Amino acid sequence: MTDLDFMRRALDLADRAAGLTSPNPLVGAVVVRDSVVVGEGFHAGPGRPHAEIEALRAAGDRAGGATLYVTLEPCAHQGRTSPCAPALVAAGLARVVVATGDPNPLVDGRGLEILRRAGIAVDSGLLADEARAQNRAFFTWITHRRPHVTLKTAMTLDGKIADVHGGSRWITGEAARAETHRLRSRADAIVVGIGTALADDPELTVRLGAAWPREPYRVVVDGEARLPTQARLIHAGTPARAVIAVGPGAPAGRLRQLAAAGATVVECSGSPGRVDLRHLLGWLAEREVVAALVEGGGGLNAAFLEAGLVDRVVVFIGPRLLGGRAAPTPVEGGGRSLKEALRVVGATVRPIGEDFVIEGDVEPAR
Amino acid sequence: MTDLDFMRRALDLADRAAGLTSPNPLVGAVVVRDSVVVGEGFHAGPGRPHAEIEALRAAGDRAGGATLYVTLEPCAHQGRTSPCAPALVAAGLARVVVATGDPNPLVDGRGLEILRRAGIAVDSGLLADEARAQNRAFFTWITHRRPHVTLKTAMTLDGKIADVHGGSRWITGEAARAETHRLRSRADAIVVGIGTALADDPELTVRLGAAWPREPYRVVVDGEARLPTQARLIHAGTPARAVIAVGPGAPAGRLRQLAAAGATVVECSGSPGRVDLRHLLGWLAEREVVAALVEGGGGLNAAFLEAGLVDRVVVFIGPRLLGGRAAPTPVEGGGRSLKEALRVVGATVRPIGEDFVIEGDVEPAR
Repeated sequence: MTDLDFMRRALDLADRAAGLTSPNPLVGAVVVRDSVVVGEGFHAGPGRPHAEIEALRAAGDRAGGATLYVTLEPCAHQGRTSPCAPALVAAGLARVVVATGDPNPLVDGRGLEILRRAGIAVDSGLLADEARAQNRAFFTWITHRRPHVTLKTAMTLDGKIADVHGGSRWITGEAARAETHRLRSRADAIVVGIGTALADDPELTVRLGAAWPREPYRVVVDGEARLPTQARLIHAGTPARAVIAVGPGAPAGRLRQLAAAGATVVECSGSPGRVDLRHLLGWLAEREVVAALVEGGGGLNAAFLEAGLVDRVVVFIGPRLLGGRAAPTPVEGGGRSLKEALRVVGATVRPIGEDFVIEGDVEPAR
Repeated sequence: MTDLDFMRRALDLADRAAGLTSPNPLVGAVVVRDSVVVGEGFHAGPGRPHAEIEALRAAGDRAGGATLYVTLEPCAHQGRTSPCAPALVAAGLARVVVATGDPNPLVDGRGLEILRRAGIAVDSGLLADEARAQNRAFFTWITHRRPHVTLKTAMTLDGKIADVHGGSRWITGEAARAETHRLRSRADAIVVGIGTALADDPELTVRLGAAWPREPYRVVVDGEARLPTQARLIHAGTPARAVIAVGPGAPAGRLRQLAAAGATVVECSGSPGRVDLRHLLGWLAEREVVAALVEGGGGLNAAFLEAGLVDRVVVFIGPRLLGGRAAPTPVEGGGRSLKEALRVVGATVRPIGEDFVIEGDVEPAR
C-alpha cells in the first residue's frame, strides 16, 4: 500500500456522500500507522463532523505519530463545526498528505500553514486532479459565487433531442435514464425552460431505487410566467422548492397565482419577459445551490452557453436515427461559427446500457 | 495455440488486403501441422490466388495431414482462378476449419461438401461473427446485388454537421479525418449530394500517407445535373471514375458538358430531377462496387435511410458546441416519429484523437 492507494481510498470515502454535502465540499480521510489503516472518515453533510475528525475519532490513540490522508486541505476557521487543523495538531500526527488546497477564502493555505508551524510534515498535491474533479461544483461555487452548471442532454445518433412532433420519450434506454436521476441527486437545483415544462410537464424529482434524502430545487425559467399552477414540478415535492424564475413585466396576476400554489416566484432582472440567467444563478447560489443541472431544450441550453454559464456537459446518445430538418437539437439559438465553437475539454465516453454518454468541461469562450 | 488463435491469425491476414479485393471477399488462411504454422496466405485481389492456395503453396509437402484454417468457405467453382476445394483435397489436408460459409450462390455449401466427401474433417462457424463482419460488404453485395452502404458523418457534440453559415472545416480533428480516408480506401465508391458538392467542392479521393493503389468511384447525386464541369471531384482522378447521377429531365446540354469533361453521366430513373437511389446502387453494383461510402449532407443521408439503403453508420463526434437552430444536422428530410426511429444495433464507441466515433449496423425498418 502506497500513498496513492491511501489517497484513492480517501477519495472513495468522500464520494459516499455525493449529493448530500452542499454547501460543503466532499471530503474523505484515512489515518495510517505503520502501513495499516487505523481510522477512516468522510464528511456526511452540513453540521456533521468533518472527515478528518471522523477519521481521528476512529483512530483514537493510534493517531499519535500516524499519517493522515485527506482529500481537501483541513479547515482553519470556525464554521458549523470547530476548525480541523488545530485538532490534527492536537492528535499528534507525524505527517499529513493533502490532495488539494481549499480555495475557500477562509482556508486557502491557512490550514496547511497551521500544520507546518506545528512541525507536522505536509505533502500536498497527491491526486489533485481527481480531488478537484470530485469537488468541481464546490470549487466553482466558492470561487465564482454561482452554482456549477452541468448541462445534460440526450440525443439520437443524428443529433435530435426529440422527433419533429416533439416526442422525446424515450431517446435513451433505462440505464441512461437511471443515470440522469443519479446526476439529479448530485445537484442542488434542476433547471428547465418553460418550453420543456409546458411540453413534457416534468416532475424534476430524483427518482432512484430508494427515497433520496434531499430535495433539489425544481427550477423553471419562465420569463412571462406562463407555467400553469397545476404543473407537476410544483406539486411533485415541497411546493416552495419549485422556483419559477420570471422576467421583468411578467403579469402580476400570474405571479400571485403561482405564489398561491405554493411555488417560490423569483423576479429576475433581464429584458422584458426574459430572465437574466446570471441573476437567477446568483439567487440560487445565495440559497446554497452549489451544483445546478440544466435539462433545457435547445433554447435554454443555448442561452446558458451564450451567457458563459455552463461548466460541464453530459450528452447521452441513443443509437437511433430520427431525421427531420425541423426536429429539435440539443443547442439552438443563433449559433456560433465553427471557428468560435465552444470546446469541450477532457471529454470521456462510456457505454451505458444500449446507449453512450460523452461528458467533459466547457472551455470558456475566448 | 488453439483453433481460436489460428483463426484469429487468418482473420488478421485477410484484413491486410482490406479495400483491395472487390468484387471478391477478404480471405485469410493458415496451415498448421503439429501445432506449428507451416503456411499462411491471403487473397490480395481479383485474379490473384485465393488465400488457401497461397497458404498451401507456402506449406508445400507439410500440408499433408495438416489442418487448414480459412476465414471463408473454400470456393467450388471456376472463376478467375481454379476452384479451391479440390485443391485442398489434393493437398492431403486432414482437417479444415472454416469461419463462415460463402453465401455466393456459386458456393453456398458446395465447398464444404467437396471436402467432406473426400473424408476431410470439417468444422465450420469458428469466429463466424467476426468473419461475417469483415466481409459484411461482400455479403450484402452478393446477396442483395447492391453495394453495402456505409453512411459516414461528422457532427459536434450538439448534433451539427456545419455551422449556420455552412462551415464544416473542421468538425473533427486530424486523427478522425485520417480515419475517414481509411474508410474511403475500403469503399469502391464515395457518394455525396449536389449540395455538398457545390458547397465544399470535395475531391472525394483517398488521401492516406502513401498513394492508394485503387481509385474508388467519385459519385455525386445530382438530380438536375447542376455540377460545374470544373468541379474538383471530376478532375481529382481519372475523370471517367467521376459518376454524375442525374434524374429524368436533367438538361441535355448539361449532360453533354459533363460527359465532354470526361465524367461518367448516369441517367437514373426517378421522379423528374430526382435520382432513384436504388437505380444508382444497381448501376454501381454491376460495375463491381461492393462497398459504397455515403458522405452526404442531411438531405442525401435522409434519402438513403428512407429508401432502406443504409447498412451501417459511422458517426464521428467532435467535442465542440456550435448551437444554431438553423445549423444542419446529419439526417434531415421529413423525419420519423420516435416510435418509428431506425435502430442502430451492435453499436460501439471508441475515442479517436480528441474525437469519438460511434458505429453500428442499421436495423431495417419494420
